Amino acid sequence: MDKREAGRQVMREVLGEGYLERRDASTNSFNAPLRRFSEESCFGESWSRPGLARPVRSLLCLVMLTALGRTAEFRIHVGAALNNGCTPEEIQEAIYQAAVYCGLPAAVESFRIAEEVLRERGIEIA
Amino acid sequence: MDKREAGRQVMREVLGEGYLERRDASTNSFNAPLRRFSEESCFGESWSRPGLARPVRSLLCLVMLTALGRTAEFRIHVGAALNNGCTPEEIQEAIYQAAVYCGLPAAVESFRIAEEVLRERGIEIA
Amino acid sequence: MDKREAGRQVMREVLGEGYLERRDASTNSFNAPLRRFSEESCFGESWSRPGLARPVRSLLCLVMLTALGRTAEFRIHVGAALNNGCTPEEIQEAIYQAAVYCGLPAAVESFRIAEEVLRERGIEIA
Amino acid sequence: MDKREAGRQVMREVLGEGYLERRDASTNSFNAPLRRFSEESCFGESWSRPGLARPVRSLLCLVMLTALGRTAEFRIHVGAALNNGCTPEEIQEAIYQAAVYCGLPAAVESFRIAEEVLRERGIEIA
Amino acid sequence: MDKREAGRQVMREVLGEGYLERRDASTNSFNAPLRRFSEESCFGESWSRPGLARPVRSLLCLVMLTALGRTAEFRIHVGAALNNGCTPEEIQEAIYQAAVYCGLPAAVESFRIAEEVLRERGIEIA
Amino acid sequence: MDKREAGRQVMREVLGEGYLERRDASTNSFNAPLRRFSEESCFGESWSRPGLARPVRSLLCLVMLTALGRTAEFRIHVGAALNNGCTPEEIQEAIYQAAVYCGLPAAVESFRIAEEVLRERGIEIA
Repeated sequence: MDKREAGRQVMREVLGEGYLERRDASTNSFNAPLRRFSEESCFGESWSRPGLARPVRSLLCLVMLTALGRTAEFRIHVGAALNNGCTPEEIQEAIYQAAVYCGLPAAVESFRIAEEVLRERGIEIA
Repeated sequence: MDKREAGRQVMREVLGEGYLERRDASTNSFNAPLRRFSEESCFGESWSRPGLARPVRSLLCLVMLTALGRTAEFRIHVGAALNNGCTPEEIQEAIYQAAVYCGLPAAVESFRIAEEVLRERGIEIA
Repeated sequence: MDKREAGRQVMREVLGEGYLERRDASTNSFNAPLRRFSEESCFGESWSRPGLARPVRSLLCLVMLTALGRTAEFRIHVGAALNNGCTPEEIQEAIYQAAVYCGLPAAVESFRIAEEVLRERGIEIA
Repeated sequence: MDKREAGRQVMREVLGEGYLERRDASTNSFNAPLRRFSEESCFGESWSRPGLARPVRSLLCLVMLTALGRTAEFRIHVGAALNNGCTPEEIQEAIYQAAVYCGLPAAVESFRIAEEVLRERGIEIA
Repeated sequence: MDKREAGRQVMREVLGEGYLERRDASTNSFNAPLRRFSEESCFGESWSRPGLARPVRSLLCLVMLTALGRTAEFRIHVGAALNNGCTPEEIQEAIYQAAVYCGLPAAVESFRIAEEVLRERGIEIA
Repeated sequence: MDKREAGRQVMREVLGEGYLERRDASTNSFNAPLRRFSEESCFGESWSRPGLARPVRSLLCLVMLTALGRTAEFRIHVGAALNNGCTPEEIQEAIYQAAVYCGLPAAVESFRIAEEVLRERGIEIA
């Protein structure tokens, strides 16, 4: 299996059933190079390496995206974190730690989005 | 034990023998509020919570500091990661993942610093 | 009065009548740690210190949030600035200064949001 | 012709027919200083200099705005790039290069917005 | 007096005796456009407006530069803040507030630099 | 020629005689994955695409690195821009445009570094 197909397989597992099909349906000549980069370099390379467990990689993504202020990608990676077996408590802890390092406003935004995703997934919050 | 003293105890463990003593020796009326904030909110609060293992918290710090471009603090947290039991391979994996999310220049800088810290610690790199 | 309750009192004054009630109504086990951090460390600690007048603290928030690109929090702090007695002209000056330091695109966004908040408050702009 | 009027003429050419009229219609005492700064310093000064061709300046804007995460201004500058004669392929190349330097999440957002603008302009994407 | 000369006069007052002379001595054809921009747009325009007192403008600079991670300019503006009549306590308060909004690592760096500048100025810290 | 070797060939041309040899001499098991990523994805992929001329790609790098505040990489890419045939005037124009979009402090730093590199190369500045 080549790097690209390996990456696509990881995407299926990390981003959930149906994600890749929806994504493929909107792939075109304009966005194709970036999507190939994502499949090969991000998922086929970085995410495919054995050195860190997937739940840990997910938490790393959540705090990086909080630091970078990339809210749309953050939302996707909250779902990915749940798919990878992270508990809501672990997601909470990671973003809470981000508050001290990235500043409160960054964490407020991430908590708001994470809570929305948890609710969309039907996860009850007491 | 109050939150501040709890935080100072975590700092002793995470930042290594002698760190707190050297830091205390330079505490003064100007920097005291920030250092108290660090002891209470960062280490006494966030780092003291049981929800994530310390090595994971260390990796989160490394990628956040890479994203934020805070190189001096990054250097300190490479040492902290080793103190917390992270292996050089886990540090490598975390920063490598940051390359895709934060961009190559951010990761180049972090790899450079991490390698310096490893050498200072006498950790052999093949 | 402990730090948390002191912070909540500052929030009542700075963020306006009803803000804390609406916020409390949506507090849950997931977001509670961050909200406590905000009450204790942000408002109970930083905002409660006597060393700077509240209108000045508000202007500091506006330019930091402009620099960081945190638009949702920026919007809240335009209202807070007005509550703290900042004039529209002072808000204008602070963001205008941010144009040179943070770049024009950051300031364009902040001017747009600030203008919306002024209108929502019924403040006439000639 | 003074610097401000020169800048307004560049804006007419770069931002397209009707842009300046719509913008002037919403100019008021609050946003006037920033708009004057934009006319004089951004378009009357930087954009008016002969040292770089306008299509190149447009590509520079696209990657800076990607790096800075300023999505609303990025959207405007995709249209400006097309007005300045950049091809969709050049826009694609510039953002694709940004993926490696600014990180994949930044580029994903920019590709999404650029594609929307191309479609609004009736540019077919195979 | 034109905008540029007005700006240079503000620079003399804000950046201190001798600063402009040293700067002029290193002005050349490469850096001249940027220096003119700084004189005209930053100091001749933004800093020359009456809407905010200079000490407040200085504090705004300090927190923006903290947020942006521009340490060399931050160092210059600590000196400027003192020249403008800010007390060490006001500088301390502004950066301390930045800790919560921009994150602890940003504030640690700013405190370190500010303390160095205070000492260089011979200001005693208890 | 595979993607990695293609990337290494581009690096030889863009980063100058001897760069790759010095770099290879310090490659080890820790930094190897990142260096491979740089060779394959950055130079073997993005820089190898025909859609933009190399001098334009260099200018894009300069303004992105200015926006991101990555000064060490910025320094390397000033040299690369010269290797790619950019004139000092084009470098000046690109960074000058960055002043308006990324803020003056970012551009001040980039002008300072660019001037140093020009002098190291023996390029006379009037």
